[in-house]
Amino acid sequence: MGVIPDNVAGFLEGNPIGSLGTVARDGRPRQSIVYFARVGDRILISTEGKRLKARDVERTGWASLCVHGRERPFPSATLAGPARIRTREIGADNALVIQRITGADEPPEPLADEALAAVDRVLLEIDVERVGPVTYLD
Amino acid sequence: MGVIPDNVAGFLEGNPIGSLGTVARDGRPRQSIVYFARVGDRILISTEGKRLKARDVERTGWASLCVHGRERPFPSATLAGPARIRTREIGADNALVIQRITGADEPPEPLADEALAAVDRVLLEIDVERVGPVTYLD
Repeated sequence: MGVIPDNVAGFLEGNPIGSLGTVARDGRPRQSIVYFARVGDRILISTEGKRLKARDVERTGWASLCVHGRERPFPSATLAGPARIRTREIGADNALVIQRITGADEPPEPLADEALAAVDRVLLEIDVERVGPVTYLD
Repeated sequence: MGVIPDNVAGFLEGNPIGSLGTVARDGRPRQSIVYFARVGDRILISTEGKRLKARDVERTGWASLCVHGRERPFPSATLAGPARIRTREIGADNALVIQRITGADEPPEPLADEALAAVDRVLLEIDVERVGPVTYLD
């Protein structure tokens, strides 16, 4: 049994984007919109190593994701936990995020780490440890 | 001329909810879904004084708001700035947020500060100082 309840997992399945929350070097909150994929209690985000969100995660080791639905009353779920930037063996996880971006039935063929590194592509991974607040989900 | 460009202002008008970002006492990012209203460069959120988001703002003096649209390619805007918790002369601003929640044509009659205080209702206000990242807005 994972940390993420089934109703939240189903909700995440239907909503491919969310607000990523990190803490900047000056201690202030930083947010940006990201596509994400979920595997078990891991949230996967594909970004570039030079991005401030990636640097925040490397420096602080923590991130949160806030997802909401599109219609009133706007169901939502916030997930948070330890986070890291991965650069090795990330092809398959990166492909899962690409699938969420394109909405394709299957993920694309995974790229090799070397090909992803050549374009500074990294994987931001959150190990979800906290779920909540959750609103308007059955 | 304010900090918030016209295209972002129009986008916010059509999207009444966003992820509020604050920093928790332990230095970790906190997010939750909120309804908001905008007046000039001020973002108005109605909450309760006992909520962790309100305590974060009182302690840190800063907040951000990340708003996204409902359809691909998911336009978004993130706004941030100094923030405070107000308890005086908040009736009219609180009514503007209620209007966003209900979707009514007009805001309801403002309540007196005493009536709002009786139910711990406070106004979380962000003075937007930074706009960005902004994605997929003309």
